Amino acid sequence: MLNETVRERRTIRKYERRDVPEELLEGLLETAMRASTMENLQLYSVVVTRDEEMKRRLAGAHFNQPMVTEAPVVLTFCADMNRFDRWCRERGAQTGCDNLLSFVNGTIDALLLAQTFATLAEEQGLGLCYIGTTVYNPEQIIEILGLPRLVFPIATLTVGYPAEHPQQQDRLPLRGVIHHERYADYGRAEIDDIYKEKEALPESLHFMEINGKETLAQIYADIRYRREDIEAISEKLMEVMRAQGFVK
Amino acid sequence: MLNETVRERRTIRKYERRDVPEELLEGLLETAMRASTMENLQLYSVVVTRDEEMKRRLAGAHFNQPMVTEAPVVLTFCADMNRFDRWCRERGAQTGCDNLLSFVNGTIDALLLAQTFATLAEEQGLGLCYIGTTVYNPEQIIEILGLPRLVFPIATLTVGYPAEHPQQQDRLPLRGVIHHERYADYGRAEIDDIYKEKEALPESLHFMEINGKETLAQIYADIRYRREDIEAISEKLMEVMRAQGFVK
Repeated sequence: MLNETVRERRTIRKYERRDVPEELLEGLLETAMRASTMENLQLYSVVVTRDEEMKRRLAGAHFNQPMVTEAPVVLTFCADMNRFDRWCRERGAQTGCDNLLSFVNGTIDALLLAQTFATLAEEQGLGLCYIGTTVYNPEQIIEILGLPRLVFPIATLTVGYPAEHPQQQDRLPLRGVIHHERYADYGRAEIDDIYKEKEALPESLHFMEINGKETLAQIYADIRYRREDIEAISEKLMEVMRAQGFVK
Repeated sequence: MLNETVRERRTIRKYERRDVPEELLEGLLETAMRASTMENLQLYSVVVTRDEEMKRRLAGAHFNQPMVTEAPVVLTFCADMNRFDRWCRERGAQTGCDNLLSFVNGTIDALLLAQTFATLAEEQGLGLCYIGTTVYNPEQIIEILGLPRLVFPIATLTVGYPAEHPQQQDRLPLRGVIHHERYADYGRAEIDDIYKEKEALPESLHFMEINGKETLAQIYADIRYRREDIEAISEKLMEVMRAQGFVK
């Protein structure tokens, strides 16, 4: 039987007022550090936010999503090449961490840690929400958390005991996501097949109606994932990657 | 009690000859798709490699690491903005997927899927190895797997039943990785404290001796993570991101 917690999981955005014990949090993070990491270098750091004022400031960087102030704990997982770089410099060695590959390597390490933590935390009855806007406003988060050069915020998790049990979200059928031996590109028939269930959901039809859109895809294209917004954020992201030392 | 499988995990590089049943593999991937995903868009694809000739070709892109040909299954997790983009275009909508933010969003989604799969697969007795070189030779992998524009290989897992039980690798102490409220930068005393156990390991001393190095950090700086190699790979990586449509 496959992992019941993962099979039944939901993202949790509302939390009980009770705190997450520090001992539990640290035990979860320590165990999550067993996740694979590039050359066993652990190219990540985690900033733990519990202070109300710090949460309020972080929320501002996350478009004031209420989970950030309402969760007892906010974790910011960062790609961190700074610690490795300092270790080398303290030991008479000079490596190369100020480049794009190091950004990607640190990003991978940070996300494997974050996701292992997420699975472990949910198994302990905690509820979590990934705040996808971490890379949308990285410069604010860098300033608030005091992240030095060669450190970059990649993923934010809000953590607490669940105070809701929402409906489980839909997923695309597996056949729409896996490819055997070579990538089989999607034609009209495949797109119709893969998205038909999602498009027929009552909530999809409801979103279309309240937004006055003819298709679900238009809601993403015109509202949630608008070209002009995404391009402006991309330009800013490249600037911040440069400022943190990852792009020349 | 925290998850025993994760606590006791090791990366597995040697596999039994027996195959991984397709039904098990698909069940694991389908369950792993319960992982969080940006706006529920599932910005990923997984290419399954079982064919011997395809594995041989992929191994070439991974510096001929033997796990790639010896594992019964190789999974390449890709950031995929192509499927979402096509869905939008088929539905009279135009979104913006050809940019850096989309690369990062797809990368995050692909890694949350990969790591959830990894935890589930290890719970079922499978052994795995992340092949960190996926982003070192992306253009070869793109060619071998036929990845179209807006698709990028991010992580590779070799999967099979373990034929070894290696020693568990060391990890840094948690205090070296977490920060409370604000990032506390590392001075000489903190670096000494965080790395002292790793530096004193018999295998570290052995590596230093056989490589004629005075410190463990020098092995990374001079051999495993050499500035000139990493910078050359970074330049190539940016070129391939541009070729796949993610950088202007």
